Amino acid sequence: MKACGLIVEYNPYHNGHRYHLQQSKQQTNADCIVAVMSGNFLQRGEPAIVDKFTRAKMAINQGVDLVVELPYHYAVQHSELFAKGAVALLETLHVEHLVFGSEHGQIEDFVQMANLQYQYQDTYEAYVKHFLQQGVRYPVANQLAFESIHNDRLAIDVTKPNNILGYQYVKQTIASNGKITPHTIQRIKSQYHDQHIEQDIASATSIRNQLQQQKQMTKLIENTLPLQTVQLLTYYQQHYGKWHFWEDYFPLLHHKVLTSSPTELRQIHEVREGIEHRLYHTAKQATSFQDWMEKLKTKRYTWTSLQRMFTHILTHTTKTEIQSLLASSVLPIRVLAMTNIGQTYLRSIKKEIKAPFFTSIKSPFPLQESAERISNAYYGIQDPHIQPMMRNQEYQQPIQKTM
Amino acid sequence: MKACGLIVEYNPYHNGHRYHLQQSKQQTNADCIVAVMSGNFLQRGEPAIVDKFTRAKMAINQGVDLVVELPYHYAVQHSELFAKGAVALLETLHVEHLVFGSEHGQIEDFVQMANLQYQYQDTYEAYVKHFLQQGVRYPVANQLAFESIHNDRLAIDVTKPNNILGYQYVKQTIASNGKITPHTIQRIKSQYHDQHIEQDIASATSIRNQLQQQKQMTKLIENTLPLQTVQLLTYYQQHYGKWHFWEDYFPLLHHKVLTSSPTELRQIHEVREGIEHRLYHTAKQATSFQDWMEKLKTKRYTWTSLQRMFTHILTHTTKTEIQSLLASSVLPIRVLAMTNIGQTYLRSIKKEIKAPFFTSIKSPFPLQESAERISNAYYGIQDPHIQPMMRNQEYQQPIQKTM
Repeated sequence: MKACGLIVEYNPYHNGHRYHLQQSKQQTNADCIVAVMSGNFLQRGEPAIVDKFTRAKMAINQGVDLVVELPYHYAVQHSELFAKGAVALLETLHVEHLVFGSEHGQIEDFVQMANLQYQYQDTYEAYVKHFLQQGVRYPVANQLAFESIHNDRLAIDVTKPNNILGYQYVKQTIASNGKITPHTIQRIKSQYHDQHIEQDIASATSIRNQLQQQKQMTKLIENTLPLQTVQLLTYYQQHYGKWHFWEDYFPLLHHKVLTSSPTELRQIHEVREGIEHRLYHTAKQATSFQDWMEKLKTKRYTWTSLQRMFTHILTHTTKTEIQSLLASSVLPIRVLAMTNIGQTYLRSIKKEIKAPFFTSIKSPFPLQESAERISNAYYGIQDPHIQPMMRNQEYQQPIQKTM
Repeated sequence: MKACGLIVEYNPYHNGHRYHLQQSKQQTNADCIVAVMSGNFLQRGEPAIVDKFTRAKMAINQGVDLVVELPYHYAVQHSELFAKGAVALLETLHVEHLVFGSEHGQIEDFVQMANLQYQYQDTYEAYVKHFLQQGVRYPVANQLAFESIHNDRLAIDVTKPNNILGYQYVKQTIASNGKITPHTIQRIKSQYHDQHIEQDIASATSIRNQLQQQKQMTKLIENTLPLQTVQLLTYYQQHYGKWHFWEDYFPLLHHKVLTSSPTELRQIHEVREGIEHRLYHTAKQATSFQDWMEKLKTKRYTWTSLQRMFTHILTHTTKTEIQSLLASSVLPIRVLAMTNIGQTYLRSIKKEIKAPFFTSIKSPFPLQESAERISNAYYGIQDPHIQPMMRNQEYQQPIQKTM
């Protein structure tokens, strides 16, 4: 069986994702579509609007055959680590192709850029060192070094978020010695950061904004989503109480920061360079999550990196824990959902597979402690009467669908 | 000037407290009434229904001349430490008398019991050691040793909460070499733990229960309170949003426990003997604060000790911090409110006073960090737009009233 891999968040699954899925099938002619999906918290440091089980259901309803979870310690990270974890999982799962959406749309340019980067790695590192010595901060030094190398040759606009991710995916597939062939599909109509819905393909950001503002499903939103996504979103809101937005977590985050010492905050992943003091002082005046973010934001920090930091504070994920998880060679395969095709595929690779795979977080799942804590944090805004049932999903068998 | 000391919580100030205050003035003929009052969290491990500033206002409106705060590390503790901190503060403030309410009402019996305790201290300690060797837990061994000594001679019912506190106060006044003369007034009509209001003097517990159930002031409750208390409670609810009950803190506590490791929980004061595991497992099923407490409760722990533990979790007060604060010789005098009589009295003792006194928690107030964190935790359930103003009261001058 030939498998094609996708790296997704489906927050929520919309018409743009459907296009991506259809094109991936067509272009690769794969027998099985494998999606690596972020869990309840996402790469840009946000709670997913609905939980990973519901989003996995959306995926298999629409033609994905196997959904595996990208663990938190790779999912809620900058693009390079995110790509590293996701591509490593796809490699473990023996997929032959990886198809990603990008603003740019030409795979040759991504490959060329990634190759150049490897070719000039020494020069690149020398540049980084040079800029650091000039007193520039590390991420900026990286960016300047990157530009120094790709200057004049840069066919791709790396300020576009899907181009950046795509570039990192391609870098990782090259590192995996060509076992995975990368493909890209040009994103159509809407841009990632678009705030407003204007057509049947809208960005996930604009769809979430609408859902948050309207507090319910509307015709305008329905137009951008497959029917089953509409049904699952509506079901979630009606049966579990609410969709998840950062604002709902504000009282929990606020209390946490206002009752922690700077030393304790500094133990949290991504809390560094003295931001623990700024966190505390801005908390004292903050009246909402949005307000807090605006008070906290400086040129020094991107919005996304601050959101990731807040995610780690909320889930109480420490530097020590992340370091130890990233250092571990075990990257367990956690199956969230599968069709019978997906199940057949899993069976077919089972013998060759190195990593263990898990159908729930029951012991001996190696990330159990972290997974449980993250799940607790995510569901913490729902009605306490429903929380036990929601948390318990982590201990149930994967969602199955017979085609 | 002759000062009489009271040890109070005023949660809220009611007709029973008024009787206590009037009797204290009459019996001691004091020029100045000094009250040592718990702050925003109380001895029995509960958030006060309204903040300490409002309760201090109630006190001076009713005839107290000076309200000083018993710091958290003495206030939210078992009766012996509570009494130790409170009497030490009164001693520093040079009061000559201490008047407390008790179920028993005869001061001679309290003095005799405390003297006996000192007299048989060695025997007492031998008994404790003996019971510990029999495998009994420390608090139980204490209780058995106490009974072994006072057996047959016990005129006082020490299962009554105000008798226990009174006994500890008297023990402390004896330890202070008779500088403070203790007096007691028999509590009239209602018992501390009464749940229902039946007359114009009701227990604070029954008044709070009514307020929590009715969610507003009612005629039945008004009947048990001075008019100014009614006005201050009503004002608080209308202007700040809500009164404080444990249930309001449930989501914050719940999130804290569900995202902490056992090791982290064990660092919190009063989390011991493996209760950190029980805390976590009961949290997973708990649907409210009351439900959690019931799931957590065993013969091993009193309701009050569990509530105190929850208070320390909420305020993030560690064992290390409590130990270091208790070991410190500094017990700062934090003035919350005063009349001009109270101010004159403070001036009159200023030269003789050893401890520094503070009119706000501004630096160099030695407990600033802890005080700020506790205040943050307490106000955390109010509207975020109002929280900064409420927290800021800690930095303002004491409440003053000209008689």
